Amino acid sequence: MRANQIPTEEITREPAAFADRVTADGRFDRTAEPGRFRLVINRACPWAHRVVIVRRLMGLEEAVSLAVTDPRQEIIEGDPHWVFTEETGSPGDRDPVLGIHALREAYLARDPGYTGGVSVPGLVDTADGHLVSNDYDRLSLDMATEWGGLTRDGAPDLYPAALRDEIESLGREIYRDLNNGVYRAGFAPDQKRYDRAVAGVFRRLDALEERLATRRYLVGDAVTIADIRLFTTLVRFDAVYHGHFKCNVRKLAEYPALWAYARDLFQTPGFGDTTHFDHIRVHYYYVHTAINPTRVVAVGPDPRLWLTAHGREELGGAPFGAGTAPGPVPEDERVPAPA
Amino acid sequence: MRANQIPTEEITREPAAFADRVTADGRFDRTAEPGRFRLVINRACPWAHRVVIVRRLMGLEEAVSLAVTDPRQEIIEGDPHWVFTEETGSPGDRDPVLGIHALREAYLARDPGYTGGVSVPGLVDTADGHLVSNDYDRLSLDMATEWGGLTRDGAPDLYPAALRDEIESLGREIYRDLNNGVYRAGFAPDQKRYDRAVAGVFRRLDALEERLATRRYLVGDAVTIADIRLFTTLVRFDAVYHGHFKCNVRKLAEYPALWAYARDLFQTPGFGDTTHFDHIRVHYYYVHTAINPTRVVAVGPDPRLWLTAHGREELGGAPFGAGTAPGPVPEDERVPAPA
Repeated sequence: MRANQIPTEEITREPAAFADRVTADGRFDRTAEPGRFRLVINRACPWAHRVVIVRRLMGLEEAVSLAVTDPRQEIIEGDPHWVFTEETGSPGDRDPVLGIHALREAYLARDPGYTGGVSVPGLVDTADGHLVSNDYDRLSLDMATEWGGLTRDGAPDLYPAALRDEIESLGREIYRDLNNGVYRAGFAPDQKRYDRAVAGVFRRLDALEERLATRRYLVGDAVTIADIRLFTTLVRFDAVYHGHFKCNVRKLAEYPALWAYARDLFQTPGFGDTTHFDHIRVHYYYVHTAINPTRVVAVGPDPRLWLTAHGREELGGAPFGAGTAPGPVPEDERVPAPA
Repeated sequence: MRANQIPTEEITREPAAFADRVTADGRFDRTAEPGRFRLVINRACPWAHRVVIVRRLMGLEEAVSLAVTDPRQEIIEGDPHWVFTEETGSPGDRDPVLGIHALREAYLARDPGYTGGVSVPGLVDTADGHLVSNDYDRLSLDMATEWGGLTRDGAPDLYPAALRDEIESLGREIYRDLNNGVYRAGFAPDQKRYDRAVAGVFRRLDALEERLATRRYLVGDAVTIADIRLFTTLVRFDAVYHGHFKCNVRKLAEYPALWAYARDLFQTPGFGDTTHFDHIRVHYYYVHTAINPTRVVAVGPDPRLWLTAHGREELGGAPFGAGTAPGPVPEDERVPAPA
């Protein structure tokens, strides 16, 4: 994300600058050779978080390595940039594999004349250091469906062919009103645009509350990409969107079904174990100086609430359908448990 | 309040600039002759709100008239000032009785060389237009105890002699941690001071939750000045302090006893009927540009929640003790009901 600037348009996420497709069979642009690609993310970013969850559920940790940037972006030539720092585990302030300090270096390696925005997630080819794709949605879908052979045994079907229309039509509404809506509310340059955005956020949450009162997952009887896309917004809601982005009609915790649904997912391998509340809080409050000039980071609700019983098992379904849960998170990728 | 500046000290409310005491018998500075004094307030300000509640409960509407400033302060000579505007009911942008546009004019009438802060509430002598007192606490106490003869029949004893020690010792803790604590959190210039302030806010709310689980009112069996002092902070909590001032560990609505206590008071004559949620939201979000540069006003929770059943009657007590409820709010002082 390039998010510390208040956008004048309704869209806060720019179109992907690069969108090469990587698949196991290489039938599009590139071949998913094990260990060749490196996924640069930030733990705060909901769009990057989607790809991190898919990667883990599909068991692609060996196939594509992970590089985590600092939640505090650094101003370089006047723009905020995702960077590697000692403080967040990168010796010498550089990614040990790519050798870069700022993700923008991979964009410039790909296109020396590039002047657009730099966003996470970014898939980088370790062979030449080029950015391959920052198309978070395509990356999620391709890792979920096109990396066969590199995925783990028991990997779930996150994008079942029979459910894709429903996933995508629901996803468009959720994206417009909620995933992107919270940003439109938070960065609204005037009251009118804020009012419109925040109304959409809660209209969508209200509709989801109703939908999820009787179904364990958004579409079908198991986790799909639809749940992943929704979760990464919900898990940030009370910690940052509610106050920092002024989405304060209600907390997520005030929606009984939706809050239980979100906790159910959080407690499912792949979701809570990839959520880093400190990085989330610090990033949003530190970076968006246009809406929080003091950079004071709000403490937020106790994250241990995410570990409370949710009772959603009685709605049936199985998180991974015919598949199985992933094993433990690799030691060097672990996030702190809520404390 | 002078509140759009981030203070460097721990104290956000300056000492009163003027504190002449007005009593029915005139034994201090001035005599409370009916109709002589005018109380200048803003509906957003919790310190002014205290005096407004006392005035109404004591039936002093005829004795001391009310002048309501615009929730949006105006910048005059570089400082934000409370002003009268057409938009909030003052023809020609002047108070019809005092003839002034900005409250500071009454300060300058009193002391032409005055250069300090200008705050509400301000009691003004209509005879000469001089500011008499901006000492909100003394004003509350004097109206509660020293205006005998001008008060209504059935006026309650808001400051019973036998309870004053308890009211004041409890009040000091609540002031430090909560009434003033939310401001220290909201205007904290750095993380350390914010962390300390916000911890105090929730430590005090936790203690109050425990105290109010078994007692209907803070001290004794009826409303006292202790409840008024607490209420004016609680009624602003979820609408502005929770998000705008980053006091977001929990909402007031997440404290069962405290939230029921606050609703009980809200539904008691004198409390909810002097609360203007729109003025509260607009003031805080519009004026404090140091923490909300866009001036976008957050929508906040539905104020109708304040009208829901609270079940506190079963704890016993009577809001006005041996006294009675005040009559209806004078027509020209009514605030919009939650809608």
